[in-house]
Amino acid sequence: MYGTVLHAPGDIRFEQLPDPRLETPTDAIIRTVAACVCGTDLWVYRGIEPVDRPEPMGHEYVGVVEEVGGDVRTLRPGQFVVGSFAISDNTCGTCRHGYQSRCEHGAFLNTCQAEHIRIPHADGTLVAIGDPPDSRHLADLLALSDVMGTGWYAAICAEVRPGSTVAVVGDGAVGLCAVLAARELGAARIIAMSRNPARQRLALSFGATDVVAERGCEGVAIVRDLTGGTGADSVMECVGTAESLAQALRSTRPGGNLGVVGIPHTDGVDCAELISSTVGVRGGPAPVRRFLPDLIHRVRTDRIDPGRVFDLTLPLSRVADAYRAMDERRAVKALLLP
Amino acid sequence: MYGTVLHAPGDIRFEQLPDPRLETPTDAIIRTVAACVCGTDLWVYRGIEPVDRPEPMGHEYVGVVEEVGGDVRTLRPGQFVVGSFAISDNTCGTCRHGYQSRCEHGAFLNTCQAEHIRIPHADGTLVAIGDPPDSRHLADLLALSDVMGTGWYAAICAEVRPGSTVAVVGDGAVGLCAVLAARELGAARIIAMSRNPARQRLALSFGATDVVAERGCEGVAIVRDLTGGTGADSVMECVGTAESLAQALRSTRPGGNLGVVGIPHTDGVDCAELISSTVGVRGGPAPVRRFLPDLIHRVRTDRIDPGRVFDLTLPLSRVADAYRAMDERRAVKALLLP
Repeated sequence: MYGTVLHAPGDIRFEQLPDPRLETPTDAIIRTVAACVCGTDLWVYRGIEPVDRPEPMGHEYVGVVEEVGGDVRTLRPGQFVVGSFAISDNTCGTCRHGYQSRCEHGAFLNTCQAEHIRIPHADGTLVAIGDPPDSRHLADLLALSDVMGTGWYAAICAEVRPGSTVAVVGDGAVGLCAVLAARELGAARIIAMSRNPARQRLALSFGATDVVAERGCEGVAIVRDLTGGTGADSVMECVGTAESLAQALRSTRPGGNLGVVGIPHTDGVDCAELISSTVGVRGGPAPVRRFLPDLIHRVRTDRIDPGRVFDLTLPLSRVADAYRAMDERRAVKALLLP
Repeated sequence: MYGTVLHAPGDIRFEQLPDPRLETPTDAIIRTVAACVCGTDLWVYRGIEPVDRPEPMGHEYVGVVEEVGGDVRTLRPGQFVVGSFAISDNTCGTCRHGYQSRCEHGAFLNTCQAEHIRIPHADGTLVAIGDPPDSRHLADLLALSDVMGTGWYAAICAEVRPGSTVAVVGDGAVGLCAVLAARELGAARIIAMSRNPARQRLALSFGATDVVAERGCEGVAIVRDLTGGTGADSVMECVGTAESLAQALRSTRPGGNLGVVGIPHTDGVDCAELISSTVGVRGGPAPVRRFLPDLIHRVRTDRIDPGRVFDLTLPLSRVADAYRAMDERRAVKALLLP
C-alpha cells in the first residue's frame, strides 16, 4: 500500500510501505475512507519538533473494517468505523475514569495518512456506526477523530455550562470546533479570537456571538470589557504557544476555568502565574473515545457539522500539497481521499 | 499600640506603632484576641522573598470589634469576629462567584500581629460570631482565618468527594488542615506525606489513613502503589516548591484533580508537564471568606479542631521567639496572645 512519511522538515512523501497486518488478537485492519492533516502535524513539518528518522504521519481517519484479530468482540469486517487518534483499551482504571488518551496500555496513532491502518486495541479505540454513513456526513465524522473531539474536550475542561460566557483563543480547526462545542453545551456568549475573515465567518456560523481580532494584552482587555471587567467564565486555549496561553489565562475570570488543548510549546513559561490565578486549568490530549458515541449521534442527527472546518479536499496521493497549503495558511484543514 | 515589624531577614521586632484609626466608612477597628505566625511569613523572614523596607507582619487574627465606620452594617462594637487574611467587599462580581481572595477591591492584610487591627471592607471580610466563643474554641477559630480555610480550599480545588482517594504533600499547618478537610468531605483514603513523627501523629488523628515518609520519585511510586497504580483522585500541594509541585502532580491520576495552595516558588518549572497531564489544577490564595460560616459552624459543633496545629503559645510581645521556633522547625505553628 501507499502511505505518508515525513523524511525531514518540509519533506513529505507518499510512498510504498508494507501492508499492515494483524499483530495481536486485539488488532483490526481498516481500509481508510478519509484521512486528513492536523495542525499538530505542522509542528514536525516545520521542524519545531525534531525529526530524527523518517516518520509515518497521520492520526485522523474514518474507514471500513477489513480484518479483525481473534479477541475483537465489537467489530466485524465491512463496518464503517470512527476512531480516536489515541489508542485505548477502554477497560483499564484510567479509561474507566474517562481518560482514554492516558490509557495504561495506550499510545498515539501515527500511520493514518495511508490506504490501510492497523488499529491496536480495536474494541477500545474504534466505534462502529450502525448504518453506513450518508456521504454528506463523511467529513463531519472524520472531524470527530481529533479536532471536534478535542474542541469538545476543551469545552468540558473549561466547564462550559448553560449560560456560560466563553472565549476561544485560536481559530484553527480545533478552535472553531471549540466554538461549536460551547454552543452545544449552552454557552450564552462565545467570543472567538480571530483575525482571518473566512475563519471569523465560520466561527460566527458555529455559534460565536462576538469576534475579537486583537491579540495579547489588547485581546485580553477587550475580552474583559465584554465580560463586565472580570474575564470569561470559560476559556479555551487551542494554539499551544506561550503567548496564547498567557492570553487565555488572563482572559479567564478568577475562579473560572481554562481548557488547554494546544500542545504546549511553552518553554520558559513559569507556572506560578497559572497556579496563583485561582483559575481551574485542565488540558492535554483529549480522551476523544469518551465523547465519540455522543458526537456521532449529534452528527447523524444534523445537530453539529464540524466537517465544515475542511476547506480543501485532495487525493491522498497529493498529501504533500495538503501540508503545504496548511503550512502557508491557505487552508484551515485538508481532507484526503484515497 | 505595639505591633510586629520585619526590618530585615531574621530581624523581627515588636515595636510601638501608631494606633490604627478608621480611614473609610467601611472600615472596622478590632482589638486582637489572638494572632499567629504563618508558614508564608517565613518566606520573607528567611530572605527568600526580598524585603526592601520595614514591613508590618501578620494576616491571621480573631478579635473583638472596637469601632466601625458609618457604612458598616453587619458589625457592632463588642462582637467577636473571625476574618479572612484577604480583604474583600463580598459584593463585586468576583466575590459573588466565591473568589473573595481576588476581590476587585481587595488586598491582603499584613498588620495583624499587633494589638489592634484596621480591617477595610469590614462587612465583607469579617464574620461575627453570635455568642462569645468558648475559650476552648479560640485556637480553632483563629486557624480558620488562614490555615484551615486554605486547607479547605485545597480540598475543594482537588475536588475531594465522598469515597475519594487523597494524597497531601506538605505536613505544615495547611497540609494538616487539608487532611482534616478531606476527612470532612468524605474521602475514603487519605495519604499524608510526612517524615516528622509529631506531625504524622496529628495527621493520623485528623483522619489520615496512611502516612508516607518518602519524597520525590520514591514518594510518587508509593502513592501510586497505594492507589492501584494510577495515582490518587485528589492531591493537595501545601508546600510551594518546584519539587513538591512535581511530586504532587505525578501523584495525581490522569483526570484527577490537584489543589495547589503552597505559594509557588517555582522558578524554572515549565508548565508543559502540568498542562499535558490531564490533571485538573486549581490553586492560589484561598477565598477563606466563602468558607467561614460553614467552618465556624463546624468548630462550634465540635466537628473539627484545627486549633491543634498550634503547638506553641507565646505572648504577642515574644513574636520574635515564635518566628525563630517555626524557622527552626521546633514548632508547627505559634499562637500569640496580646
